Amino acid sequence: MQVTEKLASLCSDLEYGDLPPEVVHQVKRCILDWLGVGLAAARHETTCILGDHVRRMGGAAQASILGSGEKVSVEQAALINGTMSHVHDFDDTHIETVIHPSSPIIPAACAMGEWRGLGGRECITAVAVGMEAALRIGVSVCPAHYDHGWHITGTAGVFGAAAAGCTVDGLDPADTAAALGIAATMSSGLREMFGTMSKPYLPGHAAANGVRAALLARGGFTSSKTALEGKRGWTSVFSVERDLTSICDGWGREFEVARVGFKPYPSGVVTHPPIDGILHLAEEHDLEPSDIESVQMQVHPLVDELTGKKEPATGLEGKFSVYHCVAAGLIRGQVGLAEFTDACVRDPEMVALRQRVSLEVCGDLRRDEARVTVNLTDGTSHAVHIEHARGSVERPLTDGDLQAKFLMLTAPLLGSERASIVSGMCWDLENQDLGCVLSTAVIDADKMG
Amino acid sequence: MQVTEKLASLCSDLEYGDLPPEVVHQVKRCILDWLGVGLAAARHETTCILGDHVRRMGGAAQASILGSGEKVSVEQAALINGTMSHVHDFDDTHIETVIHPSSPIIPAACAMGEWRGLGGRECITAVAVGMEAALRIGVSVCPAHYDHGWHITGTAGVFGAAAAGCTVDGLDPADTAAALGIAATMSSGLREMFGTMSKPYLPGHAAANGVRAALLARGGFTSSKTALEGKRGWTSVFSVERDLTSICDGWGREFEVARVGFKPYPSGVVTHPPIDGILHLAEEHDLEPSDIESVQMQVHPLVDELTGKKEPATGLEGKFSVYHCVAAGLIRGQVGLAEFTDACVRDPEMVALRQRVSLEVCGDLRRDEARVTVNLTDGTSHAVHIEHARGSVERPLTDGDLQAKFLMLTAPLLGSERASIVSGMCWDLENQDLGCVLSTAVIDADKMG
Repeated sequence: MQVTEKLASLCSDLEYGDLPPEVVHQVKRCILDWLGVGLAAARHETTCILGDHVRRMGGAAQASILGSGEKVSVEQAALINGTMSHVHDFDDTHIETVIHPSSPIIPAACAMGEWRGLGGRECITAVAVGMEAALRIGVSVCPAHYDHGWHITGTAGVFGAAAAGCTVDGLDPADTAAALGIAATMSSGLREMFGTMSKPYLPGHAAANGVRAALLARGGFTSSKTALEGKRGWTSVFSVERDLTSICDGWGREFEVARVGFKPYPSGVVTHPPIDGILHLAEEHDLEPSDIESVQMQVHPLVDELTGKKEPATGLEGKFSVYHCVAAGLIRGQVGLAEFTDACVRDPEMVALRQRVSLEVCGDLRRDEARVTVNLTDGTSHAVHIEHARGSVERPLTDGDLQAKFLMLTAPLLGSERASIVSGMCWDLENQDLGCVLSTAVIDADKMG
Repeated sequence: MQVTEKLASLCSDLEYGDLPPEVVHQVKRCILDWLGVGLAAARHETTCILGDHVRRMGGAAQASILGSGEKVSVEQAALINGTMSHVHDFDDTHIETVIHPSSPIIPAACAMGEWRGLGGRECITAVAVGMEAALRIGVSVCPAHYDHGWHITGTAGVFGAAAAGCTVDGLDPADTAAALGIAATMSSGLREMFGTMSKPYLPGHAAANGVRAALLARGGFTSSKTALEGKRGWTSVFSVERDLTSICDGWGREFEVARVGFKPYPSGVVTHPPIDGILHLAEEHDLEPSDIESVQMQVHPLVDELTGKKEPATGLEGKFSVYHCVAAGLIRGQVGLAEFTDACVRDPEMVALRQRVSLEVCGDLRRDEARVTVNLTDGTSHAVHIEHARGSVERPLTDGDLQAKFLMLTAPLLGSERASIVSGMCWDLENQDLGCVLSTAVIDADKMG
């Protein structure tokens, strides 16, 4: 089975007209959500350090850094924007693979598209192709690959970024196959980095490498023709188990992008079912922190594995502490960016409450499912069963939810009016000029802090 | 055991005065050899495509592209020069790990050193630190890591490039540890790429990523403090077996760089014992191709695994065909760059002869050992046993051999006089200005072809 060449051919052949309307709409939801969470990271320290580095390296003015109005090389724009997208751990998730697909793929598609002066329609096609390539490659090694310790958003994401870049440039199947091969030898990323700046860096790295793979392939650079399926190809080296059929089967009929969910809370996706539970209980029973004797959660094993940090010390670590997430939900009645500052995580009331939160792993629960029980000081208890977390595929955020999330994140930066204009352009992206969207979403200098 | 932090501390503390004279000398041998094989790739298609890409991306004029007199950003210089170093498969080898250490590490050290205006002495220190870091990390996962399919020159090389970059900038242990962590999440590279441009690309990618890791760490970027030894750290994710003690034990007393060998032939290092054998027999018995009935080799298993290509179609594939290497040695009486052109590999006489070459794998032979037997049409046979290949640690190329190799590679490009001056500067590198060496080693425009 010549998987790499087959996939390249499918990527190369897919056109805008092949996308069902609901797929086009879902891609626009991804782009709107990506833009919001990316812009929200414009002043983050991670973005600043990386931006300083990129400015020191220099580069041609080809594509925009999100929110800044500044142009850098297409590789550099992909690098920074990909990192920004993941800084707040607020970006979308393909829950089966745990890939956050928009972060590595949309920055590659947008940077290339802006550079080439493409319209929104071509950008949607490139994102769709990139999503399918990355998510299907991810599915082929799921779950063994992620379980082994790979940060799949980068390891699989680089293929999506490369495929998106190839689509923008209209590469033929042979060059697209070369790009996938070049991407394979740059595929990287460790889960060991979670809770540090090197985590959001990875999708940026994948985005930039994908752009480079596409451009080198276009220039005639060669690579293995069996990069995915070869004896020492990517699927063999990166996973103890693989199902190569999932990469190409059903292409063009079934779209993995349809299974992408959006985050209502800026924390590890597996914390969302217990957050839903605690917010529900807090509101329904009008709970005060002082009422609480203890909180018990029953959750999927990944919750403990990925977010079991009992004593987070920083805002970033708080995103990977389900204990903090639940305590914050109880004390603040919401779980947004403000609940993941260093100050909030170190707040003595928060520290005290999260010590009364406990977790029980239940192998029979799904990743988007949880049971939460609060035991009150007066001896009473309340419990809730979250069957599907908000933002999951089964209980998706509505367009209105996504619009509200976008405005919440960007109105403080762009102003309400411009935030609203930008969101409108995203919803109408197939009729918009991509560069115009990006140059409208520029933050005023005085708000860059 | 806090391996990452310990290694970072050792890297950060090592000074020029800590290097024994024989280590300084060996590093200079590496630098001379690296410069020669890199310059020889100045006009290669791989270099041209990558150079065009880099020029399109743009970048500040910080560090030199080998041989061109052109300056690009320090990341880009590391990328191109690292790739050039490996284009001809003629660069040095740490045989235990099969790491080609100079290709990812020296370009990082030189680009950073040139940018910062350092002298040769500091460059030697940076290269030495980078070599020890990369080779010791490689040893810790040897041989399981390489056997699994990883192209260890890139996967381990990125740590060496990062450590070299940190040494140039004098980073403290904490920042050096961060750089090693950032490097870990960029570590990549598949053996599946062998025989394509994506192979030499990898050390360039590792060099550039190492430079970026050092610069980001310097800027305050954070990473895992257990990047190497953590539960999902690099050694666990990248290998089924590991010995973490080999990373730091004996640091400063035993130098892995002393175990680096140099290549007399521009082909896969495991082809060298049979090449030695056939060249010896051809000369001793004055053999003509028409005399040969058949050639039989007994070799280490890796010879078949890495270079068992029976029908190479291109010059590049010829480097990974021990059959072609042996046939070329017999017909041409030498095995140099001229024996790895497409034309030479497709020469009907060469094709006919290599069909009469056969290989027997012997598990009891070392990697640098071979037995070669030629059976002549007149019924007689001659045999030779190569105990250690030329260029191995046990039978090293002399300084004179390295000097001759450098002049052979660079005199056609630089002219004999300038090639000789540059080699003299390398042998005296501790007293030279690094930028001056690189700006002297510039190829005249008319020779860039």
